[in-house]
Amino acid sequence: MEGSTASMESPRMSDPLTVHGGRRRAAQARFPDAPRPWLDLSTGINPVPYPLPTLDPAVFTDLPEPEDLARLESIAAAAYGVPDPALVVAAPGTQILIELLPLLAAPGAAAVLGPTYGEHGPGWARAGHRVREARSLAELDGASHAVVVNPNNPDGRVLKAADLIPLAARLDRAGGFLVVDEAFADLEPGVSLAPYLPRPGLVILRSFGKTYGLAGVRLGFLLAAPEIAAAMREALGAWAVSGPAMAIGTGALGDERWRMAAAAATAEKAARLDALMAGAGFRLEGGCRLFRLYGHAAAGAWFERLGRAGILARPFAYRPDWLRLGLPADEAAFARLAAALA
Amino acid sequence: MEGSTASMESPRMSDPLTVHGGRRRAAQARFPDAPRPWLDLSTGINPVPYPLPTLDPAVFTDLPEPEDLARLESIAAAAYGVPDPALVVAAPGTQILIELLPLLAAPGAAAVLGPTYGEHGPGWARAGHRVREARSLAELDGASHAVVVNPNNPDGRVLKAADLIPLAARLDRAGGFLVVDEAFADLEPGVSLAPYLPRPGLVILRSFGKTYGLAGVRLGFLLAAPEIAAAMREALGAWAVSGPAMAIGTGALGDERWRMAAAAATAEKAARLDALMAGAGFRLEGGCRLFRLYGHAAAGAWFERLGRAGILARPFAYRPDWLRLGLPADEAAFARLAAALA
Repeated sequence: MEGSTASMESPRMSDPLTVHGGRRRAAQARFPDAPRPWLDLSTGINPVPYPLPTLDPAVFTDLPEPEDLARLESIAAAAYGVPDPALVVAAPGTQILIELLPLLAAPGAAAVLGPTYGEHGPGWARAGHRVREARSLAELDGASHAVVVNPNNPDGRVLKAADLIPLAARLDRAGGFLVVDEAFADLEPGVSLAPYLPRPGLVILRSFGKTYGLAGVRLGFLLAAPEIAAAMREALGAWAVSGPAMAIGTGALGDERWRMAAAAATAEKAARLDALMAGAGFRLEGGCRLFRLYGHAAAGAWFERLGRAGILARPFAYRPDWLRLGLPADEAAFARLAAALA
Repeated sequence: MEGSTASMESPRMSDPLTVHGGRRRAAQARFPDAPRPWLDLSTGINPVPYPLPTLDPAVFTDLPEPEDLARLESIAAAAYGVPDPALVVAAPGTQILIELLPLLAAPGAAAVLGPTYGEHGPGWARAGHRVREARSLAELDGASHAVVVNPNNPDGRVLKAADLIPLAARLDRAGGFLVVDEAFADLEPGVSLAPYLPRPGLVILRSFGKTYGLAGVRLGFLLAAPEIAAAMREALGAWAVSGPAMAIGTGALGDERWRMAAAAATAEKAARLDALMAGAGFRLEGGCRLFRLYGHAAAGAWFERLGRAGILARPFAYRPDWLRLGLPADEAAFARLAAALA
């Protein structure tokens, strides 16, 4: 891998606390005397999950039927604003799509717009592509394939369709494609490129677990032109998505009212979190509705102090002055954070 | 694809009823006047599922922890008789392993011992390998990679370790590997090659859903030498297996008593089914505890007659004199089948 790799290191080779949220057992080892239960603000997962339906035992016992998968993909198309369900491919989480896409791509040089989510670069490298980190949209040109996260994780930076659509077209003409990871786009109006599909060279990833607070369900989607969608459908095989994931996903993605309410509730909590953190001397660096990025000269000391109080934030090895926080779930969580910050 | 492909065609291009079991909606279209509910004997899935535990909501809401995955793989190693959990890789079903293995293999010619389960050949072909069907173990020699299903589906034929272990070694020396799909080995004593691991070139697939009657859960395992296991772990990514699948799989695979009882109960039902079918003029062609293969000159007419009675059997386009049946679940199912055969 060329260029700056600090933000693209593999989670398998690093301190789990600086790489992914949700590693509570690693936290237990690091802060053994912290009060329990943990208040885990280290992820961008909605802390208020979509209400779990009562599941028919048949979703566990029976092999999922093709019609059930088609129905899920059709409802996902409507939820994401994709004009045609044939462009939607359901998968057991986006992580496996991140791993498979480079295996389906023509060999070449991949560029990832960084700093960003750490799994894309290693996925391309494992599949044998050369990988470099680009620091600007302009630096993506010249690559065979490009990856952007939009809104970006961790800083929430949003790229414009007017820049991304022509980039996808340029990459397509050279036999490559542009991957737009929209893991955090669900609750951000006007950000997604899904309505532009199908476009040659444009591949979009959507995550179910973050918005709906159901990360354990493992459900994600690839949205792409028919040829890429078909190749991914084949790579995943006929029954990659579990019966429970299909049932839960179909219900949740079809519930526009819940999604509207979640957008309002997360916006309100994000504003409240910003105010609380500002009071403790943190400046807002960016973010989206499901996470906020703050800067503070003593961010490392704050990470330790919060950890000793049983509150997990997300630090960044490559930016020790940054701390990312997910949304507190409720009044009690806000109160606990406020007490730790006081 | 070279050679005989009749038994290796892709399910996406064929009559769903001749390809995979469990397509009840296709059956509904084919036998619109059949009495409901269907008695689905078209699969090799245990009709008596492992009792579903009460699931902690956290398995749906939280991202699975690495320690939970390690625990599942450790319990699977013990259940399958693998000497080291590092050789075990959990996946969301074996289908995705069948699709990914060819992508991880050196380009070359793959040979599948047929007739057998129809997904292996197309998987290798999709990944760009040349594929041929071998009709005997000897015909597998000369291939870069070989695939056998053991016990075989649909005829239950069992290959000996004394033949397979040296074959794996020969393939390994030429840079390839032997895939042994043990989807139906759980309840068959002495069949699995898992205790021989690690062996260079030996890759074993195990299916969770069939034995435990929980096909919708999507859980399967790759068992292989450390290098292949590591490559598959990377291809799958960190969270391919859902929280519910981890919780259910960990409980079920750790329950040896249930597995012993299931082996006894399925053996008894298989014998009872054989007697019933013999009485209707079917001869036993082979099978294992979870399915039985019968021959009959009028198998096609019997398929139709059973279908009109709401009973789904599994026909084979390449062997119109064959019919495969899974086990009836209980007395009522046996009685219904007996009535349709009378």
